[in-house]
Amino acid sequence: MTTPPEGWEARGRPPSWFRRFTFAKYAETRDFLDAVAALSEELGLHPQNINFAATHANITIEGPERQAPGAAELAFALRINALAASRVLP
Amino acid sequence: MTTPPEGWEARGRPPSWFRRFTFAKYAETRDFLDAVAALSEELGLHPQNINFAATHANITIEGPERQAPGAAELAFALRINALAASRVLP
Repeated sequence: MTTPPEGWEARGRPPSWFRRFTFAKYAETRDFLDAVAALSEELGLHPQNINFAATHANITIEGPERQAPGAAELAFALRINALAASRVLP
Repeated sequence: MTTPPEGWEARGRPPSWFRRFTFAKYAETRDFLDAVAALSEELGLHPQNINFAATHANITIEGPERQAPGAAELAFALRINALAASRVLP
């Protein structure tokens, strides 16, 4: 079973990975979401679900065909972390 | 109390307005979300929450300062409906 990267929590069976990202203002949230969308296009992967409001975005990642996340999803989550690193509040 | 426009459901107290939009594929969902983001910037209003996956987007609109939606939110919801009109599945 692939272990989720830093900041992500495995939930359910089969597990999906969940992380909440918090921002100072809407413009930062929006910028992050745009970057995630561009990354999704680049990788041909997208989150199973994104829930966002003015200052946060909750992202859920599933594996293919309702299986657990694997190597591709690990790479995806790490890239999302990198996108967020300069934006997320401590 | 302002009545929500077609397709929107009032929920809670004070009410927020909720509508689910369904699309044929991720690219349409993405295009819709981008249009909603541009509209938000134009109007200086944004949904309280958006929850989306590959083929749907659930949007919740609140009034200002936790009051019921009013004239500005009605105009916003109608504009969102118009953005969706050419994209939403029957």
